[in-house]
Amino acid sequence: MNHCTRCGAKVALRVPEGDSRLRHVCGRCGEIHYLNPKLVIGCVAEWEGRLLLCRRAIEPRHGLWTLPAGFMENGESTTQAALRETREEACARVVIDRLFALISIPHIDQVHLFYRARLLDAEFDAGEESLETALFDEPRIPWDRLAFRSVAFCLETYFADRRAGAFGFHEHTLPPP
Amino acid sequence: MNHCTRCGAKVALRVPEGDSRLRHVCGRCGEIHYLNPKLVIGCVAEWEGRLLLCRRAIEPRHGLWTLPAGFMENGESTTQAALRETREEACARVVIDRLFALISIPHIDQVHLFYRARLLDAEFDAGEESLETALFDEPRIPWDRLAFRSVAFCLETYFADRRAGAFGFHEHTLPPP
Repeated sequence: MNHCTRCGAKVALRVPEGDSRLRHVCGRCGEIHYLNPKLVIGCVAEWEGRLLLCRRAIEPRHGLWTLPAGFMENGESTTQAALRETREEACARVVIDRLFALISIPHIDQVHLFYRARLLDAEFDAGEESLETALFDEPRIPWDRLAFRSVAFCLETYFADRRAGAFGFHEHTLPPP
Repeated sequence: MNHCTRCGAKVALRVPEGDSRLRHVCGRCGEIHYLNPKLVIGCVAEWEGRLLLCRRAIEPRHGLWTLPAGFMENGESTTQAALRETREEACARVVIDRLFALISIPHIDQVHLFYRARLLDAEFDAGEESLETALFDEPRIPWDRLAFRSVAFCLETYFADRRAGAFGFHEHTLPPP
């Protein structure tokens, strides 16, 4: 961040009065610009025991496999974000069950939420940001071609819970690689 | 948002190629500025059956009661945010138990997370953003002087769960008032 979004003047890093952290503060109008973590939200969507994955058509991690997920937008709820991302990336319609995982990733300022979900039918297809979409049973998950560590955590935990006969809610923090 | 954070030129609202939403796009350098929901994180902290509340010393809702909570910062996990806010607003040390509530508030672009927690001791005090802090048992909660609807939802649900003998995880979306 170089410039103030309000007046366009240069910003400088300083600790505002009453604060304890460095913020981008405008040198002209004094506006304080706060930067906060972003939410990435998606689904672990099941159809007849298999899970829906998408192969990424965009960077980062072009060509690798991921769960349908993306940045939450202003004006929506967390479940609306999960439904929208699943529709956009995999052209799939799902019913959301419960929140399954919350994964903090402090070094990239993100929090990932994944919901368990069921596909309403076997109709799905690659959206604009996907090269292909497919259903995988556990032995066929492309473990060495997964795009993100949060996705790997989610899939491993999902199958462990399924084997144990009960799905929980899982919270996890990913350290820097 | 009027100006580009990268180059300072004016931004205009338009739908970028491959997108379906209006974004603030820089008229000079082309940078696309995404606005995303913010996370507010706090604790429902119990000490000998009573809950810790803070009376706000800042706007909005100056003078009204709230759970210790605030905006998640870059570089921290969700539980670190909950611990930090509880320390800053109530000078209290807690042990976090489980995530208790996730409340989407789409019309103000926020998601609130509240953890159940236990105070480590009865030492607490008003932080800089609080006028006073106090422990309340259920009949004495200042229901008509609560600062936020998410706090009211959280407290009502907490006491209902406690009466029922088991704490769950609660997801809720607040409509505009």
